[in-house]
Amino acid sequence: MSENKKGLLFVLSGPSGAGKGTVMKELLKSEPMELSISATTRAPRAEDKEGETYFFKTREEFERMIENNELFEYAQFSGNYYGTPKQYVIDRINAGKNVMLEIEVQGALQVKSAVPEAVLIFLTPYTVSELRSRLEGRGSETAEQIDRRIKRAMEEIEYISAYDYIVINDKIEETVDKLKNIISSEKAKAVNNRNIIKKFKGEC
Amino acid sequence: MSENKKGLLFVLSGPSGAGKGTVMKELLKSEPMELSISATTRAPRAEDKEGETYFFKTREEFERMIENNELFEYAQFSGNYYGTPKQYVIDRINAGKNVMLEIEVQGALQVKSAVPEAVLIFLTPYTVSELRSRLEGRGSETAEQIDRRIKRAMEEIEYISAYDYIVINDKIEETVDKLKNIISSEKAKAVNNRNIIKKFKGEC
Repeated sequence: MSENKKGLLFVLSGPSGAGKGTVMKELLKSEPMELSISATTRAPRAEDKEGETYFFKTREEFERMIENNELFEYAQFSGNYYGTPKQYVIDRINAGKNVMLEIEVQGALQVKSAVPEAVLIFLTPYTVSELRSRLEGRGSETAEQIDRRIKRAMEEIEYISAYDYIVINDKIEETVDKLKNIISSEKAKAVNNRNIIKKFKGEC
Repeated sequence: MSENKKGLLFVLSGPSGAGKGTVMKELLKSEPMELSISATTRAPRAEDKEGETYFFKTREEFERMIENNELFEYAQFSGNYYGTPKQYVIDRINAGKNVMLEIEVQGALQVKSAVPEAVLIFLTPYTVSELRSRLEGRGSETAEQIDRRIKRAMEEIEYISAYDYIVINDKIEETVDKLKNIISSEKAKAVNNRNIIKKFKGEC
């Protein structure tokens, strides 16, 4: 509506195996929004680019970011830190960009408590047995690892009431359409359009 | 998601001349939702059908409905009562239908206070001068009547913060798309999908 309007913050989250990565990749093909870039202490791989795939940090640097409250959320996986730097996200939103975070459920809840206006979207298959099929279909994990993921998903699903939207990821095209609808209607929310009164009256 | 899931209540409102009627007509061509039927004390016209265009009531019957709290909202225009009967809307929603009310701003605010989960959509042209052009384009009212409507619109626009969504009615096709997005994303809201936890766990 206005040139200097702020962007919105969306968080796509849900159990491991729900298809978050695939969905985001498809969504970004047609939706003008930015995917947030995480900070991590894991070693860069050949395909990694600093500031594009990740912000690479030493353990010491990362822990300083934690201490200075510079992260929206963080967690450790396999001995490495992963987190979402606040400043990058805030800068993009102030520049009028809609930003999407694609993060784990616990991280999403941390973001919501830090930024109540963040729009949380829970992506999930319809049933836990579908989730199991997906995880097994990947063929990249042991039965024991899959069991652990399923157990965690059963815990995570309990948190959906803290989310704004639930999207069942059945057919990828339909899922992307649902996300685009959510983004579009969030832009139409009254709280995001307070400038309309002045515009209507011709005062700006 | 579930056979016995309740429908949602939407309220389309906004200043006279915003194009609510035209937009609703277009929307209903492709969106499976029901338009609520108002009760009125005005005399039936040739094209009217009881229970389709309106529920026709005597003044006495209508005032009894007011006393018995059987209306979500009501108002008087040109000496006739118009209102939204609760029972009809509740029955349709319980039958799983999404229901749309197309009513005046004051009525919409009454509905929101009676039914906080109702989704209020404010439809408006972008500026008051556009609204004036539309009203003048209709050619059905005197300059004085138009001035009165403009004055009222300037008051009504102040209430948009009580609404959930603002939709600028510029191009009709885009407006209808925006409404469809809102309806679709409201269906994806977490509060409207509490049964998903049980479904996910295979408990129902």
